[in-house]
Amino acid sequence: MKLLALSGSLRAASINSALLRAAARLAPSGIEVEVFGAMGELSLFNPDRESDPPLPVVRLRRAVDAADALLIASPEYAHGVSGVMKNALDWLVSFAPFAGKPVAVINASPRAAHADTALKETLRTMSAVLVDEACVAIPLLGAGLDEQGMVDAEAVAAPIQRALEALCREAARRRPLDDATFPLG
Amino acid sequence: MKLLALSGSLRAASINSALLRAAARLAPSGIEVEVFGAMGELSLFNPDRESDPPLPVVRLRRAVDAADALLIASPEYAHGVSGVMKNALDWLVSFAPFAGKPVAVINASPRAAHADTALKETLRTMSAVLVDEACVAIPLLGAGLDEQGMVDAEAVAAPIQRALEALCREAARRRPLDDATFPLG
Repeated sequence: MKLLALSGSLRAASINSALLRAAARLAPSGIEVEVFGAMGELSLFNPDRESDPPLPVVRLRRAVDAADALLIASPEYAHGVSGVMKNALDWLVSFAPFAGKPVAVINASPRAAHADTALKETLRTMSAVLVDEACVAIPLLGAGLDEQGMVDAEAVAAPIQRALEALCREAARRRPLDDATFPLG
Repeated sequence: MKLLALSGSLRAASINSALLRAAARLAPSGIEVEVFGAMGELSLFNPDRESDPPLPVVRLRRAVDAADALLIASPEYAHGVSGVMKNALDWLVSFAPFAGKPVAVINASPRAAHADTALKETLRTMSAVLVDEACVAIPLLGAGLDEQGMVDAEAVAAPIQRALEALCREAARRRPLDDATFPLG
């Protein structure tokens, strides 16, 4: 089971990026989490380049296509979704393999409700399958934990692992339907 | 009176960009509208570069600082603010001269209420002064008008000119307060 993780912050010390790296280390056996490394290299979305996108966009689309599900963590800036995250999603709006993909949104600062709500509205509009059980809020803002601290803290590691498992259950439940190549009747 | 216009779309045939270019041509005498030309050259926002931003960001900030007010037109993508527009705003969140700047949001597709609402929430959170009278909805999506068509169409030109005038009235009303260097009493 392959999960693709997208962080909406380019800050080196971003808690959202650290959370996703921690998730990659906490993933149970059989679940592989790849944190997408080129969020900051994506061009700004230009509809005129939809059919001939720049290379980092091609890489993003390939990674999305290859993933069984997506894991998203993104900061709130000025009561809105970060431009970095929205820009990545804008490149995926008309990318067919995105639709129907199970997605978990991890909110690292639960008081930031505006961006969380807006991000989920956009994901639903893009026909992603938001997996409610896997969308967890973990109050990390101000907790002073780095990646290692998150891995070590039971209060962080346990909900992350439960979220990964819930996300993968949903992805597994959907996969056989997609793979059915013979009549079932 | 100088207005800076920001378009949230990089598409060559964008109705939002055409609307802002039309506004520049329709501006009454004494009002100069500059459409910012480097929206697509801005780097993706990185908080680590806040104090040492890339050159296009420096240009954006200088243009904002020099403007008496801002005129914004931006598309809705997947029920959200375009990443292009949000990314530009993310670079301005902690740029002090942005706060208190009068802003008009022109909505060229009034059925797109999600992005319009979210954009205004972000602008208010950034302490911009949203000028209600200058925030107009002009149903252009599907109208088939290009820049010249907008200039020529009374139903477009008239509300744009009223919006520019309302925005400038607010900017003028605020300017003397900022410039007051002597005791008024």
